[in-house]
Amino acid sequence: MNLLLLTPEQHLGNDRWLLSDRQANHVLKVLKLIEGDQVRAGIFQGGMGIAHIESINNNRIEVLFKVEHQSPSPLGLSVLLALPRPKMLKRILIDATSLGIKQIVLINSWKVDKSYWQTPNLKAELLHEKMLLGLEQARDTTLPTLTLAPRFRPFVEDELDGWAGNSQRILAHPGNYPVMPHSLTGPVTLAIGPEGGWTDYEIEMLGKQGFQCHSFGSRILRVETALPALVGRLMQLP
Amino acid sequence: MNLLLLTPEQHLGNDRWLLSDRQANHVLKVLKLIEGDQVRAGIFQGGMGIAHIESINNNRIEVLFKVEHQSPSPLGLSVLLALPRPKMLKRILIDATSLGIKQIVLINSWKVDKSYWQTPNLKAELLHEKMLLGLEQARDTTLPTLTLAPRFRPFVEDELDGWAGNSQRILAHPGNYPVMPHSLTGPVTLAIGPEGGWTDYEIEMLGKQGFQCHSFGSRILRVETALPALVGRLMQLP
Repeated sequence: MNLLLLTPEQHLGNDRWLLSDRQANHVLKVLKLIEGDQVRAGIFQGGMGIAHIESINNNRIEVLFKVEHQSPSPLGLSVLLALPRPKMLKRILIDATSLGIKQIVLINSWKVDKSYWQTPNLKAELLHEKMLLGLEQARDTTLPTLTLAPRFRPFVEDELDGWAGNSQRILAHPGNYPVMPHSLTGPVTLAIGPEGGWTDYEIEMLGKQGFQCHSFGSRILRVETALPALVGRLMQLP
Repeated sequence: MNLLLLTPEQHLGNDRWLLSDRQANHVLKVLKLIEGDQVRAGIFQGGMGIAHIESINNNRIEVLFKVEHQSPSPLGLSVLLALPRPKMLKRILIDATSLGIKQIVLINSWKVDKSYWQTPNLKAELLHEKMLLGLEQARDTTLPTLTLAPRFRPFVEDELDGWAGNSQRILAHPGNYPVMPHSLTGPVTLAIGPEGGWTDYEIEMLGKQGFQCHSFGSRILRVETALPALVGRLMQLP
């Protein structure tokens, strides 16, 4: 937790804010701060600054905070991601959020196990919670927009073009394709397939929406390794 | 498991090899192969090819295999990594290996918790096992060389220069530094600090060994996110 992310219900009035139990625990047990100390904070979906620890009464901590600057620039990259294995989804959402990705679609694919769509991990509040962890990690306040697309074809045919807007559309796919571009500033939309890859039909459907295949080395990477590696390659991180 | 990694004790003579229990399980339960099917295989620290499933008797599977080509090119990147949290170390080793990194030093740093050096995860056979998973993932056969450096200064002063050889030496560090290079083919040595970063003293010591600071965006990434992102940025993946 590199940032105290403050939400409206924590606002006590004027510049006074009450830390959540989890935040208070972190301030006391990990950061080991005392009254008078400072710690970085930001308002959820808002600006950032320094919180001054005003009072500590057992686990109740009040801070003084006001916005001093904006949250960091978003990454100019959106991700169309075949729904990962449930145990990996949480970690991928933290990573994607900490890297500054602000638009994520989780989409079905032929090689996505049907059971993945039934997992309790897909509950909105759990996904939300993981993205909050990514914001706290990277010191950001702006939550990504997350869309679930449990049917591949309707989403790709009817919604993908509008969602991807005027972005450069890139598909990482093994084969004899142009090498992956680098140091882009965006907007870029990146499609990442499931373990085992997109099917030929899916590649063709994405191709019709302007997604062009690029090669990214010959090694087979897990999705959770490929995502940050592709982001590091494609984008000039702000 | 995208590759059956065969070791000498599995060799039955001529082109015949016996799968391990774990491999047999994977072939039967995940790949659902039968006699006559084919699957990619490679000899540990050796060449690669296709294994033909010769016989299945309960969980005992014999395959015919001979080397047809070399293992994939290594990545021209070595990593000097501050020892990560134990639960992350396993994952980082899998990632680093699957990305093709062949030289890893795990080093102490001021901000590495002393207890990390006492963890059972540092047992050689466990580290070895995680790197094998990385090889199976990426279809590679060549194990990275892993060195433990529990004392920062003696390693950096006496051994680092020889270990890093004629490589370009790069340090990812937040601040007003030149932007991180990209698409290198190597040799490169990359130093990645602990959560919280290297101390000024450590930066200075690494600087004396030719490590130059480069910035990689303003976001604070977890080490397990930063490693693949930096590899994707720095290297032209073969």
